[in-house]
Amino acid sequence: MVLFETPDDPEAFDRYYREHHIPLIKALPHLRSLKLSREVSPVRGEPYHFISTLEFDDMAALKDSFASPEGGAAARDVANLAGPDKIRSVIFETEDVDLTA
Amino acid sequence: MVLFETPDDPEAFDRYYREHHIPLIKALPHLRSLKLSREVSPVRGEPYHFISTLEFDDMAALKDSFASPEGGAAARDVANLAGPDKIRSVIFETEDVDLTA
Repeated sequence: MVLFETPDDPEAFDRYYREHHIPLIKALPHLRSLKLSREVSPVRGEPYHFISTLEFDDMAALKDSFASPEGGAAARDVANLAGPDKIRSVIFETEDVDLTA
Repeated sequence: MVLFETPDDPEAFDRYYREHHIPLIKALPHLRSLKLSREVSPVRGEPYHFISTLEFDDMAALKDSFASPEGGAAARDVANLAGPDKIRSVIFETEDVDLTA
């Protein structure tokens, strides 16, 4: 998951993300799904401008993906989207809670 | 989505979340899914301690849910988990990108 603070030029960010960054993400090996935020609004604290969630089957698939040339290209391109103080990105496993139990 | 910074006492946070907060979330009307993070690790910037994602069918269902007594109880209980400087929460719609296109 990659979380982007509000950029200096949100329109330029969105354009670059759509035109240049998404194709690099779509080229990632083992990528299972890509979910993008729309119109983030805050409840507590500052809103993020944009949140992307990349899903892989497991941690091994994720690591293998980012060790590939395509993974390197996508990871390097993040620096073209925002400075390091404007980005937080984290890796985690997801537990889907059974709501019927 | 609710993002929690590392608490002063992570074990107490996790225990309270599991024992007290999850039942309040599960009681929310219209809740479609609840996804919880496991073992968040950082790639860029600080890691979050914990990330919860609550899914609803649409914005109207979300608003109706948090306007209910159960929604009020769950929202108020967040303050028992962490101080306002340790929490960021945001609402957004999700676009699922077609990876085959």
